[in-house]
Amino acid sequence: MKKPIGIFDSGIGGLTVYKAIRQAFPEEDLIYFGDTARVPYGPKSPNTIIEYSVQNARFLIQQGIKTLIVACNTSSSVALDALRDLTGIPIIGVIDPGSEVAVRATKSGRIGVIGTEGTVRSNAYSKAIKKLLPEAEVFSYACPLFVPIVEEGWQDHHIAKEVATHYLEELLKQKIDTLVLGCTHYPLLAETISEVVGTSVTLVDSAQAIAQYLGVLLPPDRDGNAGKDSFFVSDNEQKFAALAGRILTKNPTMLKRVRLFESWFID
Amino acid sequence: MKKPIGIFDSGIGGLTVYKAIRQAFPEEDLIYFGDTARVPYGPKSPNTIIEYSVQNARFLIQQGIKTLIVACNTSSSVALDALRDLTGIPIIGVIDPGSEVAVRATKSGRIGVIGTEGTVRSNAYSKAIKKLLPEAEVFSYACPLFVPIVEEGWQDHHIAKEVATHYLEELLKQKIDTLVLGCTHYPLLAETISEVVGTSVTLVDSAQAIAQYLGVLLPPDRDGNAGKDSFFVSDNEQKFAALAGRILTKNPTMLKRVRLFESWFID
Repeated sequence: MKKPIGIFDSGIGGLTVYKAIRQAFPEEDLIYFGDTARVPYGPKSPNTIIEYSVQNARFLIQQGIKTLIVACNTSSSVALDALRDLTGIPIIGVIDPGSEVAVRATKSGRIGVIGTEGTVRSNAYSKAIKKLLPEAEVFSYACPLFVPIVEEGWQDHHIAKEVATHYLEELLKQKIDTLVLGCTHYPLLAETISEVVGTSVTLVDSAQAIAQYLGVLLPPDRDGNAGKDSFFVSDNEQKFAALAGRILTKNPTMLKRVRLFESWFID
Repeated sequence: MKKPIGIFDSGIGGLTVYKAIRQAFPEEDLIYFGDTARVPYGPKSPNTIIEYSVQNARFLIQQGIKTLIVACNTSSSVALDALRDLTGIPIIGVIDPGSEVAVRATKSGRIGVIGTEGTVRSNAYSKAIKKLLPEAEVFSYACPLFVPIVEEGWQDHHIAKEVATHYLEELLKQKIDTLVLGCTHYPLLAETISEVVGTSVTLVDSAQAIAQYLGVLLPPDRDGNAGKDSFFVSDNEQKFAALAGRILTKNPTMLKRVRLFESWFID
């Protein structure tokens, strides 16, 4: 009995990770969970991000996964320890893979990182990069408007370029040669970001990085059968289906809504 | 024993409503709940918005409120019926008050409405306005980037003006004379919006509208004592306190986090 790989994200952005893993592992069964009812995680507090990440992981563990991929950079930045306390199965976030690729790519050791407020505040990329390359200099910058711009479909709009110019101005002054796209939405803005930072800066896409990383860690499951795909979301599945179709370039077949039951409690 | 008025919003924006009500009713006890752990509601599905609104209302009803103010335009647009099924206490959303002020303000009957995806898709303003003024022509437009721009503190930035110009271009072609700011965040962008639409277009602020409306419905509680303020949020209270200080121009004294307990369930 093949056990699936579980992937969760705060919403739809993790599908870039899903897609890269599907391409690298055509025979693995994959289960994706997108917490579309509570997206975004980036501006929320570490406690809340940990709480949500643990709930998402619990749901996937109940589905019998053998490995958990945390596609969300914000969750990967603050919740990995809590998730490892929860279960003995291997858990892979996007920070280590992205950091490894960045360290291989840089020549000057001057690395930029862009991400959500939560990711940047956690310093997770900076710590992971410096563990691999102690002399590295890491410059991190939060770009909160990038996610809504992508979700508005404005990635090629001149406003996207102006926002990118505004955000990346400070990073460019630091003469970085490598820039980690530390949010699953950002690869969809890669072209605009590249126009702003110039072609001499290497962009690191965490989706690609995690698929390579997983290839090293996980002996591939080869039984000659195409892997099954299952998608779960916490908000309406129709909206997810439409956006997923755009990212995956095919419509998700097995897609269900997972509902939450909640009760209030004053801290 | 004075009973409090309850106000909820998806996050911090409803504090503009809170502030207007506090000014109009200095002796009322007010309880505010901001669902900062699940903000924003605008892009989410009606079912999820209803579920969250009912949970928020239940929490406030448990605190013994006499009236419920739904400060969130998205909740007011889709969840009022579900909330009225829940309780017998008066429930006031922002749609009716905003629509009344718009109908009084318009001369040409050509009224614009801007709001979140959820508010615009519901057509709630259009229906409410046409009930009061059947010959009105209502033009609605979703402006998803306005909320993140306000939360980024960019309301006076040139990018805010460009985004506003882009969004409001179509509305301006319709030669509206009145524009409803159908989201609690938008009054904070009023100056920029006014620069784009011109001073001949009257802006309707739902926060002001609801305070006036409440004055007609609610016999004021006058016992000579200043009303008490309590704030509850579902995410971290520190971040809320900082932003609230900016909107209320004083720090909220009684502020607590309300935690959610959730379990998963496949639909």
